[in-house]
Amino acid sequence: MLITYLGPAGTFTEAALRTIPEAQQPGAELRAEPTVIAALDAVRSGEATCGFVPFENSVEGAVTSTLDELASGSLLQIRREVLLPIRFALLVRPGTSLADIATVSGHPHAQPQCRGWLKANLPQATWRASASNSDAAREVAAGTTDAALAGAFAAPMYGLDVLVDGVQDRNDAVTRFVLVTAAGIGPAYTGADRTTLVAFEMDDHPGALLEMLTEFAVRGVNLTRLESRPTGEGLGRYCFSIDCEGHIDEERVGDVLKALHRLCADVRFLGSYPRADGTPPTVRRGTGDDDFLEADGWLSRLRKGDLGG
Amino acid sequence: MLITYLGPAGTFTEAALRTIPEAQQPGAELRAEPTVIAALDAVRSGEATCGFVPFENSVEGAVTSTLDELASGSLLQIRREVLLPIRFALLVRPGTSLADIATVSGHPHAQPQCRGWLKANLPQATWRASASNSDAAREVAAGTTDAALAGAFAAPMYGLDVLVDGVQDRNDAVTRFVLVTAAGIGPAYTGADRTTLVAFEMDDHPGALLEMLTEFAVRGVNLTRLESRPTGEGLGRYCFSIDCEGHIDEERVGDVLKALHRLCADVRFLGSYPRADGTPPTVRRGTGDDDFLEADGWLSRLRKGDLGG
Amino acid sequence: MLITYLGPAGTFTEAALRTIPEAQQPGAELRAEPTVIAALDAVRSGEATCGFVPFENSVEGAVTSTLDELASGSLLQIRREVLLPIRFALLVRPGTSLADIATVSGHPHAQPQCRGWLKANLPQATWRASASNSDAAREVAAGTTDAALAGAFAAPMYGLDVLVDGVQDRNDAVTRFVLVTAAGIGPAYTGADRTTLVAFEMDDHPGALLEMLTEFAVRGVNLTRLESRPTGEGLGRYCFSIDCEGHIDEERVGDVLKALHRLCADVRFLGSYPRADGTPPTVRRGTGDDDFLEADGWLSRLRKGDLGG
Amino acid sequence: MLITYLGPAGTFTEAALRTIPEAQQPGAELRAEPTVIAALDAVRSGEATCGFVPFENSVEGAVTSTLDELASGSLLQIRREVLLPIRFALLVRPGTSLADIATVSGHPHAQPQCRGWLKANLPQATWRASASNSDAAREVAAGTTDAALAGAFAAPMYGLDVLVDGVQDRNDAVTRFVLVTAAGIGPAYTGADRTTLVAFEMDDHPGALLEMLTEFAVRGVNLTRLESRPTGEGLGRYCFSIDCEGHIDEERVGDVLKALHRLCADVRFLGSYPRADGTPPTVRRGTGDDDFLEADGWLSRLRKGDLGG
Repeated sequence: MLITYLGPAGTFTEAALRTIPEAQQPGAELRAEPTVIAALDAVRSGEATCGFVPFENSVEGAVTSTLDELASGSLLQIRREVLLPIRFALLVRPGTSLADIATVSGHPHAQPQCRGWLKANLPQATWRASASNSDAAREVAAGTTDAALAGAFAAPMYGLDVLVDGVQDRNDAVTRFVLVTAAGIGPAYTGADRTTLVAFEMDDHPGALLEMLTEFAVRGVNLTRLESRPTGEGLGRYCFSIDCEGHIDEERVGDVLKALHRLCADVRFLGSYPRADGTPPTVRRGTGDDDFLEADGWLSRLRKGDLGG
Repeated sequence: MLITYLGPAGTFTEAALRTIPEAQQPGAELRAEPTVIAALDAVRSGEATCGFVPFENSVEGAVTSTLDELASGSLLQIRREVLLPIRFALLVRPGTSLADIATVSGHPHAQPQCRGWLKANLPQATWRASASNSDAAREVAAGTTDAALAGAFAAPMYGLDVLVDGVQDRNDAVTRFVLVTAAGIGPAYTGADRTTLVAFEMDDHPGALLEMLTEFAVRGVNLTRLESRPTGEGLGRYCFSIDCEGHIDEERVGDVLKALHRLCADVRFLGSYPRADGTPPTVRRGTGDDDFLEADGWLSRLRKGDLGG
Repeated sequence: MLITYLGPAGTFTEAALRTIPEAQQPGAELRAEPTVIAALDAVRSGEATCGFVPFENSVEGAVTSTLDELASGSLLQIRREVLLPIRFALLVRPGTSLADIATVSGHPHAQPQCRGWLKANLPQATWRASASNSDAAREVAAGTTDAALAGAFAAPMYGLDVLVDGVQDRNDAVTRFVLVTAAGIGPAYTGADRTTLVAFEMDDHPGALLEMLTEFAVRGVNLTRLESRPTGEGLGRYCFSIDCEGHIDEERVGDVLKALHRLCADVRFLGSYPRADGTPPTVRRGTGDDDFLEADGWLSRLRKGDLGG
Repeated sequence: MLITYLGPAGTFTEAALRTIPEAQQPGAELRAEPTVIAALDAVRSGEATCGFVPFENSVEGAVTSTLDELASGSLLQIRREVLLPIRFALLVRPGTSLADIATVSGHPHAQPQCRGWLKANLPQATWRASASNSDAAREVAAGTTDAALAGAFAAPMYGLDVLVDGVQDRNDAVTRFVLVTAAGIGPAYTGADRTTLVAFEMDDHPGALLEMLTEFAVRGVNLTRLESRPTGEGLGRYCFSIDCEGHIDEERVGDVLKALHRLCADVRFLGSYPRADGTPPTVRRGTGDDDFLEADGWLSRLRKGDLGG
């Protein structure tokens, strides 16, 4: 079983991937790809069984390349999410001290997450963006730059030392990753699930988002993430990438999906899967599965003239 | 076939009843009852097949006794509505002139509908409320009062003359009547239907009505009448008597009913029946039967893993 | 000071009126009028200082003649409300026993409030509607009918006996009365106030009521009563008679009024006055007077370029 | 007057900047900065009068570093927006033909905008991300890579040739840039304005966004952009970066701002400024300045007891 992921090796993505059972199965092959697109295209072509990519970060926000890739092209399905706390280390060549560091590199997202520490401890150092944290480490090993922001786990891969660990400004930063496969039957309902979808406005009418949110609200389904993304049709034309509580097999979630399907130009269902944090939804009175099924039965009886009178 | 109606004979209710096919069938017996309750109780007991009662008036508003009777007790079902333009005549004993009239009587609802005419033409006359317009005519015949406001058709019943016809202030006043039967299979969908229901709030929470109206709005179902009625549980506790466009067999109407059933303490369905004015509903994009059925099929496919991808 | 009220004397209206300070002032003259219209017209003409009329009943609902009179004609203002628990007695001529009673009379609203008791105790008696409970008592005294449903306080006025007291089916029935004056400065804010208004839809668009309710909801102002009343322009054309929590001098209430004024064809403000039950409103976070005033100040500063930056 | 901008020179940002009057004034000095942060920090420190940075792109979406910088730190104010159609050229060293190109570089956002062209014309070429399109051109000049995606205007800066112009997949791609200054009095109302703000949820309650959108909707103010951005407080905690039609000096816009200020933990006003596309807003009935002012006057009169009655 081939699992492709956003590489290179030695990044947080690989660290997150190694925590999941699919990656630990005998015979699982993990292959780093240079881009999110490449990682997902391998799944689309059937070459890989699964793809593993970052989805959003609590500091930097959505990984837009992931959102956009999932929102277009042949349909993929999210089957699992992983939350990884983000802890940065300052990696250097052996023998380097803080005073020796003139240049620091890392993924563009690494810098804002360590900005405070850098300002306080390396005020003189110049920032150099790299394609990934792992690339930054390799550049340090090659002598191009003096220090890299990366996970401590990347140090041995490049013969580097961890000069300081935990240099991120916030200790609660977390990145969410998703495991995707070809579309098909998804994971079963667990009681603490999340559903991801993309909704495309029927046309550019100003109240479209309000209408969509109302469809969720009247059925008591809470959103956990909402991103507007341009459709490419011009400024002001958006689709909405949405996570909500619950599973497609739940009546209230299915009912929201149907309403959006009627309301929107297109709804792309990207999967229902267990929440990594195990948080069950709060089900408001009147919106449980029993309530929906009971209402279905009631209407059927009414339509048959069995009015209970 | 016995049809009971709110009597006595000679009122607008009887005039409206005589316009419908059920009343014109061979063997149809029409029986005046003293109250709405009595007319409907005869249906509930099985003695009568149908009951015919006033429902609302464009000047005076809802006939609350009808609303309240339909909202409680064993379930009845509206099968037909009738709209009757209201035209009042001033009935007098033969030989009476306007100058002779010291007292005018009629149903309490008659007076406000003719107030302007009375003020202009009979400023000196005293108003005397009667239990019905027909009773008022009988009282004139008996010499108790001098003139009655009633339909011109009541004059011959009591040996009276029509002194002036068309004394109502508005020529567009109309009263709506309903024909009810025991609950069962109702009239079929015609494309221009109305649905009547009573919704009882789950509890006294301030936003209940807003929530109910939102359930209609998101499915594009327009209300044509909304009355709050006390539940008798104290001031501020209401149920809502509602007419909306459409037929229970329409998906969007059924979907609203199901949502209200989940949301409310109780929903009493009082029937879907052809609109007397023949006005078809405006079906907003995404809320037609096709849209609902298509969304049902789409969700079923999604749940089976057929994601079209 | 003349106070007119809906007569005749001996009804619940008079009983309620006698509880208020205005009626107990030295020199206050109370005058019964035959109709709500007459009671209010005396105020409009300047003849009376105040009018006192029933407004709604927890069993029978709104007193539509009061709603309609306040909604049209020259503007009047509610300055006080009174809640009176409704307790019916069965009044008879001295010497009458239950077995002697063939006819029972009362105001049309009395019968449904005592229906259960009548069915259980006087199943054979015929109901006769009267113009008022007091008229019913007078008719008993005159021998026209055998028993009257009225307040026990009416018995001595007509030389009748209270055969049974407390014959109402519900002990929590209550009627709400209002004291109105010519429009002007109203009662001051007390912290537990109610505001009454009538909103006329801009035109017959189906979502008008939903829009109005949304204006209340976004400012956290709870409605305590909503009645739709026909405007007389035809079935389906309504105005809305509304009570809400709070006082016009409160920012959130004023803000709702302004929004309705923009949204509606007309808004008729009928007064802010102390709630008879003394219940203070629940003020949601962000909707207190302080919040509104703070926001006003903030916007003013922003507009002057004082952005706090 | 110093204007800092996101450099380096030779990018679309510089091209857009050169179109605006501020940059064409005598004495205006334009200085490229390595990051959005640096460009804006120079304004914050008072060193620069204006900063000019990209804001959003119709294909790639928001420029999150700009959104995040404006959402935190000392307050800045948007005074102007610029829309620049995006047209990419393929820049090469003189003498290079398509067949010679093994590597193509550019800003990470350039690749997805030219993906189709690259796939069709340079299927064998490897993509190499650069810090900017201008850096990519410099790398070509240095021989590190073979071709760069950049604006044709960058070619002469680096001694390169335009091998192919117009290689972008969409001809309607446009990037929006903003000119910011220290906070203060902003541009005057023009009738075709846009307002930008950031709203921070009061707490993590699921309906917060729906509530905010409702405040806009009830006042008829259309949103033209909505981005959720993490607050850094953990996944699921967002602030909302919002553009809406209209100017803070318009009543309806000011009224929305006040409502958000009451509703939200914080509202950061980032400016009202002329729309680059000159599109005036659609003002719904009842939401024009006249309507608001008229309602203010009406409420004031009501509160003074001048009820017009």
